[in-house]
Amino acid sequence: MMQYKGWEGFVPGKWCNDEVDVRDFIQRNYTPYEGDGSFLAPATDATKKLWDIVCDLTKKELANGGVLNADTKIVSTLTSHDAGYLDKDLEKIVGLQTDEPFKRALQPFGGIRMSEGALEMYGYTIDPDVKEIFTKYRKTHNEGVFDAYTPEMRAARSAHILTGLPDAYGRGRIIGDYRRVALYGVDYLIQKKEEDKLAINGDMTPEKVRNREEIADQIKALKALKAMAAIYGCDISKPAETAQQAIQALYFGYLGAVKDQNGAAMSIGRNTTFLDVFIERDLKKGLITEEQAQEFIDHFVMKLRIVKFMRTKEYNELFSGDPTWVTEAIGGMGVDGRTLVTKTAFRILHTLDNLGPAPEPNLTVLWSKRLPVAFKRFCADISIRTSSIQYESDDLMRPEMGDDYAIACCVSCMRVGKDMQFFGARANLAKCLLYAINGGKDELMKDKKTGKPMQVSPEFMPITSNDALDFNDVCAKFDNMMTWLADLYVNTLNLIHYMHDKYSYEALEMSLHDTNVRRFFATGIAGLSCAADSLSAIKYAKVYPVRNEDGIVVDYRIEGDYPKYGNNDDRADEIAVWILKTFMKKVKSHYTYRDSVPTTSILTITSNVVYGKKTGNTPDGRRGGTPLAPGANPMHGRDCNGALASLESVAKLPYEYSRDGISNTFSITPGSLGKED
Amino acid sequence: MMQYKGWEGFVPGKWCNDEVDVRDFIQRNYTPYEGDGSFLAPATDATKKLWDIVCDLTKKELANGGVLNADTKIVSTLTSHDAGYLDKDLEKIVGLQTDEPFKRALQPFGGIRMSEGALEMYGYTIDPDVKEIFTKYRKTHNEGVFDAYTPEMRAARSAHILTGLPDAYGRGRIIGDYRRVALYGVDYLIQKKEEDKLAINGDMTPEKVRNREEIADQIKALKALKAMAAIYGCDISKPAETAQQAIQALYFGYLGAVKDQNGAAMSIGRNTTFLDVFIERDLKKGLITEEQAQEFIDHFVMKLRIVKFMRTKEYNELFSGDPTWVTEAIGGMGVDGRTLVTKTAFRILHTLDNLGPAPEPNLTVLWSKRLPVAFKRFCADISIRTSSIQYESDDLMRPEMGDDYAIACCVSCMRVGKDMQFFGARANLAKCLLYAINGGKDELMKDKKTGKPMQVSPEFMPITSNDALDFNDVCAKFDNMMTWLADLYVNTLNLIHYMHDKYSYEALEMSLHDTNVRRFFATGIAGLSCAADSLSAIKYAKVYPVRNEDGIVVDYRIEGDYPKYGNNDDRADEIAVWILKTFMKKVKSHYTYRDSVPTTSILTITSNVVYGKKTGNTPDGRRGGTPLAPGANPMHGRDCNGALASLESVAKLPYEYSRDGISNTFSITPGSLGKED
Repeated sequence: MMQYKGWEGFVPGKWCNDEVDVRDFIQRNYTPYEGDGSFLAPATDATKKLWDIVCDLTKKELANGGVLNADTKIVSTLTSHDAGYLDKDLEKIVGLQTDEPFKRALQPFGGIRMSEGALEMYGYTIDPDVKEIFTKYRKTHNEGVFDAYTPEMRAARSAHILTGLPDAYGRGRIIGDYRRVALYGVDYLIQKKEEDKLAINGDMTPEKVRNREEIADQIKALKALKAMAAIYGCDISKPAETAQQAIQALYFGYLGAVKDQNGAAMSIGRNTTFLDVFIERDLKKGLITEEQAQEFIDHFVMKLRIVKFMRTKEYNELFSGDPTWVTEAIGGMGVDGRTLVTKTAFRILHTLDNLGPAPEPNLTVLWSKRLPVAFKRFCADISIRTSSIQYESDDLMRPEMGDDYAIACCVSCMRVGKDMQFFGARANLAKCLLYAINGGKDELMKDKKTGKPMQVSPEFMPITSNDALDFNDVCAKFDNMMTWLADLYVNTLNLIHYMHDKYSYEALEMSLHDTNVRRFFATGIAGLSCAADSLSAIKYAKVYPVRNEDGIVVDYRIEGDYPKYGNNDDRADEIAVWILKTFMKKVKSHYTYRDSVPTTSILTITSNVVYGKKTGNTPDGRRGGTPLAPGANPMHGRDCNGALASLESVAKLPYEYSRDGISNTFSITPGSLGKED
Repeated sequence: MMQYKGWEGFVPGKWCNDEVDVRDFIQRNYTPYEGDGSFLAPATDATKKLWDIVCDLTKKELANGGVLNADTKIVSTLTSHDAGYLDKDLEKIVGLQTDEPFKRALQPFGGIRMSEGALEMYGYTIDPDVKEIFTKYRKTHNEGVFDAYTPEMRAARSAHILTGLPDAYGRGRIIGDYRRVALYGVDYLIQKKEEDKLAINGDMTPEKVRNREEIADQIKALKALKAMAAIYGCDISKPAETAQQAIQALYFGYLGAVKDQNGAAMSIGRNTTFLDVFIERDLKKGLITEEQAQEFIDHFVMKLRIVKFMRTKEYNELFSGDPTWVTEAIGGMGVDGRTLVTKTAFRILHTLDNLGPAPEPNLTVLWSKRLPVAFKRFCADISIRTSSIQYESDDLMRPEMGDDYAIACCVSCMRVGKDMQFFGARANLAKCLLYAINGGKDELMKDKKTGKPMQVSPEFMPITSNDALDFNDVCAKFDNMMTWLADLYVNTLNLIHYMHDKYSYEALEMSLHDTNVRRFFATGIAGLSCAADSLSAIKYAKVYPVRNEDGIVVDYRIEGDYPKYGNNDDRADEIAVWILKTFMKKVKSHYTYRDSVPTTSILTITSNVVYGKKTGNTPDGRRGGTPLAPGANPMHGRDCNGALASLESVAKLPYEYSRDGISNTFSITPGSLGKED
């Protein structure tokens, strides 16, 4: 059973008995750590020098307008580029996306116009041959989607009632189990995939043919991953034999993913407990010191910090920057009651000291009441000093997901190597309410031909009276419009993900998943609090429609006050819950691509600003064009009953109806919490 | 309704009332012709000069080893090449596959290795950039298929129990309704396809998304077709206004198809009755003379004669040459009792006089007892002099197919623009019988690893006794083996056609079909008479197995005589019918790709030689490696009861079980029929 040198010293079990089971390996081999951070080592000279190089390049990049260099000719694949280094002699963990640090790769499979536009924005010109290939011979995801879009889908997209759809860029959100590369070596993983492919037989339906072809592509990707490592002089065909090799192999897995895909969120998983096993083994054997262990982690994290993609201005506006979402989930508790915090959880957070604060990788602590106190204190200390740690509730997710899930992007949890998701961006429910009132005519956009308000949905019955809006009437019309929107939204996503699979399949990432993976169909909601407050205003105050010359309701005159979501007032909060449940039930009633499991998130963290721009005046008194609230937040300034009441309102939203996550952006001045340092 | 100038003078009807209905146009407008060929005109000087150019190029091609010139760099698309001419000033119908006559196009979408290999065979080297594009960025049909093939499919293919599968070349057999280009103009066809695309809505299942994308690709292909015509200075956006324009537009439709696809059979349809309407209109108006009408047809046919593809040696061996199967179906009777023979049926057959005999286009007369006598005589006369006409039974096909079907390849009938087929090559039932006897071990091939006989099917129970073979036992085992083979065969084809649609979709040809097309799943049978005779021998004589050192039955010792298929002896003929029905029922029991209608053909006209090479000794006494009989023919020399008895045996095979066609190769010396001229 212990057939590999790399497995010597590990407790055997199911993980090494003809299976791929990283969790089993971790559970049998990891060492929980309840101590504090006093064992940690500072940055080595090599680390400091390398980080100076990174800082220098960052300055140059900024001085150069945001991009230092960009490939215009070589299409990025796992093996497209020669080895690249910051400083070859100093790096303990090697590997760059291209052959030079900070040189952005050319990734046209999502869409050639996106690639071309991004390059042009920074003064580069795409190689004409590449453009020809991806125009004449190789269809892109983007072209496929637009070939198949219905006019209604296009209209909803233009009107921004559906927003941020992954139809011109990589959907991302898929986390390969990069640990498998280190634990099993690529040859073993190929062998297992060959076995899985053999097992798909019987009537060759299109689904089975597709599945067989996908596995063939996964196997090709694994072979390319070996070849990529070989370019750096590394052999990853067998299990890693040292901690350095393990970190290196894991990073190569991730590097392969970012060479292959320019995804909206390229998260890395949950790796510290796993890597700690290898580090502990080497430490015990006396092969490495704590300084070296920290150096490996520092260099690894440094590589994750300089992951960069070539993106357009519009993309950056939508996401308020150019996030890569290299989310690493840290700590949490095991289902057996032991903490999953190890010394390496401390080590990776310690990079925020050794290298300084940084938004990427997105270090995310899986928080539990039962986390070791010393770890909690350590996290709090670093948070106070760096503001660079994200926290998520492990206690909420563990019952659903077990103890080997990770976070994609900011809140989407998935079991590592066992779940994937079809990213779905958002439906703007505030705008949907306006459509209910105007019978599906957009309150802002005009039809180019007629100059009249654009009819986006079918012509539903609008509100025709100029009396105060009737709550029951508006609710019935809103329900009706949500039916339409949910239908259109699901079908749009069905189409998008079909094309992404067809033209930009994530072969490497999926090769590091179980073949029979669970798929989530991750829809999203924007404008929840605005819609809830609007309905509350209609119900509890008097709201009169104000029409423009076309008869479209473009504004609202409110008489009286009304309860607002965010004040722990059930009258408003229940409306928010009703909206969420109603919309989600409608989403669930549809066929979803590849029998994926429908989920919803309420988590627009930054794009609420862009969504608000495209949403007219709303019945809650919000001015058109001003931001919606982020995620599930109450509308800005309306939560007047204190922090706790605000949080209580958000907490009423049922997690089972929003399994892809609920975000609440909550800022507090240090003084509010008590005395400062 | 008569909105186009090109429609002036035509009897209106459904065809011009917001529909695409070429048959309706023909029925309302054509002029049946019952006269003889005395009206026909000889070749013009221009025709003679052009044909001299073709003959000269043909000689040069032969002298050059079979290929005169070949494109190694420009990937063939509708608009990839500049205009090409034989002699621009003389040609009345223009358009070549590339920019020079006899220069073969590069068509790698079916398979880059096929393209590369074909070029190499003739001393050319494929452009490395093209190879890179179709290796790294653009998967081909061939690569897709081999990615998904199961080991069993590969084994059956290597052993040649499944043969000639369209997994490395274009499947062909799809006939666009090229008449639509002439009658409606491309803009109208685009508009209709846009309407069809709009009509596909509701839950966006993968099928619907695929259908929408396919229509988008069809629309792109139609736009490209217009652009292709424009390269030749022609505008085909509107209906043709003259006979010359009609023939030219129709030919452009076909030319687009052969630029797009290197299919195994690129048939052209059923066009003479249609074109005759345009010619009659021009003749009546005095716009053209008979000489000019004939010249248009001569030049059109000349273009069809020089359609050429770049193919490998293996391909040419399988098909005993390099057929293009530009089959044109001529004549036949209408369901209303009028003949569909027109003067243009005479004109197209007259090309065999004006240009001399030729195998292409494959001029195929749809024969009916009720065809006008003068036409029958005309055909007979030309057949005697040129041996260049194929005949098929219109009386057999019309009840099933109506009166607007055509023939793809040699015998596959389909309603023009309403049916398509997934070409399926053949299952070798003679070899299947040998597998039944040997439990699925191949009688010729060895396993490369073990050196033992190759196990192709699962290990079924073989015949272990050395007694004379028991008929019932062999039949039961044969039935079992046919179950396995039909299953494997259907699934292999399901997989192949999925990939062909994915990587080499015939967008132009399908744009000239109704959107809701009927699809045939065209399986095929080889070795029918050999299998029937073998079972007859086992039943009526004594057949002893002869084994080799591995215990495999590799020969048979026959004691006594037995009835043979081909002598109108029900004892043998019923076995052939049983085999056909049994196999077809098994085929029909399976899921078939895109809910296509399963059919079978018995029509190996030349490839029976290759199939025989891969089939060992059979229980009927046939020596291993010698040819099987072509199509449904009796085994060579065994039909001893005269021509009629031989034909009677073949005629017992039920057409409803072999709807894709039954071929019987039948040669007679003129003397057998009576006195010579």
